[in-house]
Amino acid sequence: MSVRIDNCKWIVTQNASREVLRNKSAYIEDGKIVEISDKITCEADHIIDGRRKLLLPGLVNTHTHLSMTLLRGYADDMPLEQWLGSKIWPLESKLTGELCYSGSLLGCLEMIRTGTTCFLDMYFYVEDVAKAVDKAGLRAFLSHAMMDGFADKKPTGLSEMADSTFRWIRALKNPRIGVAVAPHSPYTCSSETLIKAKEMAAAERVPLHTHLAETRGEQVEFEKTHGLREIDFLDKIGFLSENLVAAHCVWLTRSEVETLGKRQVKVAHCPVSNLKLAEGGVAPVPEMFESGVTVGLGTDGAASNNCLDMFDTMKICALIHKAHRWDPTVLPAQRVMDMATIGGASALGISESVGSVEEGKRADLIMVDLRSPNLNPIHGKDTIISDIVYSAKGENVDTTIVDGRILMAEKRYTSLDDDQIYREADLAAETLLQ
Amino acid sequence: MSVRIDNCKWIVTQNASREVLRNKSAYIEDGKIVEISDKITCEADHIIDGRRKLLLPGLVNTHTHLSMTLLRGYADDMPLEQWLGSKIWPLESKLTGELCYSGSLLGCLEMIRTGTTCFLDMYFYVEDVAKAVDKAGLRAFLSHAMMDGFADKKPTGLSEMADSTFRWIRALKNPRIGVAVAPHSPYTCSSETLIKAKEMAAAERVPLHTHLAETRGEQVEFEKTHGLREIDFLDKIGFLSENLVAAHCVWLTRSEVETLGKRQVKVAHCPVSNLKLAEGGVAPVPEMFESGVTVGLGTDGAASNNCLDMFDTMKICALIHKAHRWDPTVLPAQRVMDMATIGGASALGISESVGSVEEGKRADLIMVDLRSPNLNPIHGKDTIISDIVYSAKGENVDTTIVDGRILMAEKRYTSLDDDQIYREADLAAETLLQ
Repeated sequence: MSVRIDNCKWIVTQNASREVLRNKSAYIEDGKIVEISDKITCEADHIIDGRRKLLLPGLVNTHTHLSMTLLRGYADDMPLEQWLGSKIWPLESKLTGELCYSGSLLGCLEMIRTGTTCFLDMYFYVEDVAKAVDKAGLRAFLSHAMMDGFADKKPTGLSEMADSTFRWIRALKNPRIGVAVAPHSPYTCSSETLIKAKEMAAAERVPLHTHLAETRGEQVEFEKTHGLREIDFLDKIGFLSENLVAAHCVWLTRSEVETLGKRQVKVAHCPVSNLKLAEGGVAPVPEMFESGVTVGLGTDGAASNNCLDMFDTMKICALIHKAHRWDPTVLPAQRVMDMATIGGASALGISESVGSVEEGKRADLIMVDLRSPNLNPIHGKDTIISDIVYSAKGENVDTTIVDGRILMAEKRYTSLDDDQIYREADLAAETLLQ
Repeated sequence: MSVRIDNCKWIVTQNASREVLRNKSAYIEDGKIVEISDKITCEADHIIDGRRKLLLPGLVNTHTHLSMTLLRGYADDMPLEQWLGSKIWPLESKLTGELCYSGSLLGCLEMIRTGTTCFLDMYFYVEDVAKAVDKAGLRAFLSHAMMDGFADKKPTGLSEMADSTFRWIRALKNPRIGVAVAPHSPYTCSSETLIKAKEMAAAERVPLHTHLAETRGEQVEFEKTHGLREIDFLDKIGFLSENLVAAHCVWLTRSEVETLGKRQVKVAHCPVSNLKLAEGGVAPVPEMFESGVTVGLGTDGAASNNCLDMFDTMKICALIHKAHRWDPTVLPAQRVMDMATIGGASALGISESVGSVEEGKRADLIMVDLRSPNLNPIHGKDTIISDIVYSAKGENVDTTIVDGRILMAEKRYTSLDDDQIYREADLAAETLLQ
């Protein structure tokens, strides 16, 4: 299949020199960006008029729980423990594969709608999540949340489970869907599980994913129980590694950030969720960059956001660090744009193939319709990144392409029946809440 | 003209008991909400199918500078003084009435698109702003920013200017467009001007509008110059009054907040702008409510936001206070919804006629299309406010009605030519930046 995009008003390449191109065309064949140039005349199966549009790399969401769209809006404005204990966990215990499939499909629809083309997911019933992602056409790493660190719970056959997840996903033979290994967090997993997970991820050369240092209370409790802070403990047992994508990382000291840098750990920064759960602190992202840590952005699950819109996350990320440091030059728009694209791709270990608009890369691309009041006027090349980060909304995206396949064109889904997805999600939510 | 809205899936009334209605219809005649009931059968000029939609009061933006849409994205990520001194002020000195008209019309388009039906504006060339608002069909209070407190500048015929603004706007005979009197801030106005403005606003029974306590530096400088902090100074000269709408109010002590409450001052809280300009503090909104202060929400101008989307502002408002106080119960969704609707209308002194969906009120209404992934599933009455505040986006609005007149239906503008507005805003921005 081939796609020709004619005369894009702007192309934000996110290549090494962060070039912004004006009035260029692009040609895509067999899922790959073959050519970007002034004028392309060859035939194509699909032709898109780019004259009033902005082309940019598909956004990369480095931490989410897709199926939790079913719990969107269900429990807000309450303390974390109450939220988890009285609302989220009781419902999650009633989940089934079928329900997760409905929630995941809704999540995929939202990502396609708002310009996310690739994500890292951690949840349960991964086979069903994978079926939804396969159907939707997105790129993803999927992982099963492993937990065995609760004193009152026995280990639950974690490695068998991980094995079966690997087998199942690989049986799909979908090159866009990879596996990750996900011990839920240091405070819900035993050392044995953490290490086994790390070894499994290393052997299979896939991302290792966990929650880390999300709340201050968590850090303090962990230290009481283990005699060490989370980072020191994980470093001591040899868990920190270059394929680890650690979500949150809010409550860290400067030296802990340096440790992350030394071990080449990647961070999935989730500013909206962190604010909404009232965690107080703001992740030390400037220090992460100083220490050479690769940082991507994540929405977290819809229950704590409450949407999966990476544009929303970009804007709030850019705002909160400025306010927190009393410094408007902290995390300028370009840096935030990087986190949402090439930085996220690096965090997931796939920046060789996605995260930027360059010849030879896979065609994970989105287009923003500039015929929207919030995207006018555009002053030129130097301000376009600002316009994306501070003004653009996920709903301004009108075209989403993954691996050369058009998943949304002119704001219409090409592969999914949105009305059916809403109906099924409604039913699933009703079943869950009964 | 009459409009019938049939079978709204949800109506968020924002009436005194904050009722949420299911499957009701509404009938609008001569700009007024005449009936809300189970089934309405009378004829109407326009009929809207509400079955997949949510009806709510139009949002009220209590602080903005409409024409600054022309500077959207032009200067970001820089310190406030540099931003003002090297970027904003030099450009503003080149403004003309014609340019302000183009910028205002673009701003109106953005408000219609994202569900704002009423706003309070402070800027220059108010006659031209008024022409744009008149054409667009929005409800507004417009004011000219008065400044005479700079040592090197003479007073500039402020009362003549204010008089002419009054005359001009009243000559429009547009019942939706009112005047406000706006001394820019305590630090840019002489006491004489402040008091004259206050008296003028009282005599004319219109809002008095100013910037107040926006940055800590401003407070400190003010105290050095005047020997008193801003609130004490303004209270001493008798400026604080019940028709004052004070924008920002970030850097206040608890007793200053109490003073605002005692004097019945209204506050226009602008969280996005405050974060973006890296002001560090977060306005003490919970204390304002404790002290009985009426608080509305504002976007501020597009140069410091960078959009005029009140949904964006609602979400960020709800998030930032939670994070700042380490308390997810601070400013729950309902409270934020109130600030953006009936609270804003109260701040502007017009809550008798707008700000809620009730029989007898003016028909300033918006409808949100629920066929969007981020608005599914909806769990019921108890969570719908959460869905609006945390999940909905301005771009989900598909119908905007002001004073019974449909300004946007099915996401199409009925009275404005968007393409022409973009072209003219482009030209205006080019002229300004030359």
